[in-house]
Amino acid sequence: MRFTSERHLDDGVLERAFTLGDIPGFLWTPAFATAQVPLILLGHPPLGLGRMYPRLVARARRAAADGFAAAAIELPGSGDRPRWAAAERARAELHRVLAAGEAVSDEIVDALVLPLVDRAVPESQAALDAFLSLPEVGGPVGYSGGVISIGIRLAVVEPRIVAAGLFAGSFVPRLIVEQARQVTIPLHVLLQWDDEGNDRQAALELFDAFGSTEKTLHANMGGHTGVPWYAGEDAGRFFARHLR
Amino acid sequence: MRFTSERHLDDGVLERAFTLGDIPGFLWTPAFATAQVPLILLGHPPLGLGRMYPRLVARARRAAADGFAAAAIELPGSGDRPRWAAAERARAELHRVLAAGEAVSDEIVDALVLPLVDRAVPESQAALDAFLSLPEVGGPVGYSGGVISIGIRLAVVEPRIVAAGLFAGSFVPRLIVEQARQVTIPLHVLLQWDDEGNDRQAALELFDAFGSTEKTLHANMGGHTGVPWYAGEDAGRFFARHLR
Repeated sequence: MRFTSERHLDDGVLERAFTLGDIPGFLWTPAFATAQVPLILLGHPPLGLGRMYPRLVARARRAAADGFAAAAIELPGSGDRPRWAAAERARAELHRVLAAGEAVSDEIVDALVLPLVDRAVPESQAALDAFLSLPEVGGPVGYSGGVISIGIRLAVVEPRIVAAGLFAGSFVPRLIVEQARQVTIPLHVLLQWDDEGNDRQAALELFDAFGSTEKTLHANMGGHTGVPWYAGEDAGRFFARHLR
Repeated sequence: MRFTSERHLDDGVLERAFTLGDIPGFLWTPAFATAQVPLILLGHPPLGLGRMYPRLVARARRAAADGFAAAAIELPGSGDRPRWAAAERARAELHRVLAAGEAVSDEIVDALVLPLVDRAVPESQAALDAFLSLPEVGGPVGYSGGVISIGIRLAVVEPRIVAAGLFAGSFVPRLIVEQARQVTIPLHVLLQWDDEGNDRQAALELFDAFGSTEKTLHANMGGHTGVPWYAGEDAGRFFARHLR
């Protein structure tokens, strides 16, 4: 991991941009921490880190206020990272069936999501290796938001992640729903009840599938991007309970 | 309303027992409040105030810590209040079909719940008149928990109630589900996801039916009586947002 720039935000947060191989990312740490801090890995949709930056830095500030570091890395195929042909084809096919008002088939969801998960999860794990090797970052690690299928796979394969806050707002392959049964860490799942782009019944079935004995679903109104501010605070308290 | 006893709890809460006509109840107020305080009407299942007292006083202490008064009255047909024959028959019929493993029909639910709602709601409104005539209690009023059908009817007919925290854990007549569409106040609905005695799908349909633009569902594990402590705190914050 090579830090490429750093700056101090006005509320005592140190922001560092880095590259990890060819993957760009940001690490935010509480500037005045006197001991190793837990870490929240910030997931995000595949829209590019640049476009997601304002929302990510807001979540990082909240994490730092709770005494946690936060980090985000660019997803494979997003931002300035190279596209790959199969993902582009799957995305084009999704747009075609949505525009035609057709149902989104399992094949399209699999083609869209599974390769992304297969690539993003080992990259997230390599990034965790790098973050946790820094003297100022300890554990435990929480995973927050983003592509829920990535969060599920990480929760299954990565024992350093002890709690996950997930956003039920995207297509989930059947294979990932099956893997959800193997998740046992505490979960905090956010669902926008009136999310026009989300299959609510599928989201509820996914919540039911999780194997965790501690799992909470917070459903709110406001559409896909209208998560109310108090839902963000609830998620922050979830991480505070499990990472401190 | 005639106060029959009073005592100071150790954390600065004044507890007064009262009778309103032949209805017994409790009123809890922050002992050191210097201005009129909002009120939370504490709903409860029809098991009798005596049996419910420990849980009610815990909720009242939390309300008082937020600067709110809290009150509870005995439900018609519960505790020492006279039973009525139709309710007893409906309850016996419910127990019979549950023991026989039969489905609970709409007729049984209607017979069990609608007369209770029809009696309890005007009594709650009369109690509100009495509470709000006290110099130390102002408004606004929140309704919390208990028989969800009573909460729904109250939310529709009683304009002094500005926010309701409801527990999705009991049978709801179709008529009440229809009335739920007329509810427009902010709602905080608690659902125990693995509640063995609750029809989860019916609870989700009821949540969907509510007409409120601000409605939140918090689903947790732990069975019917295993509401986690943080779910209680979330509900407290909901009332703090809307009653202050």
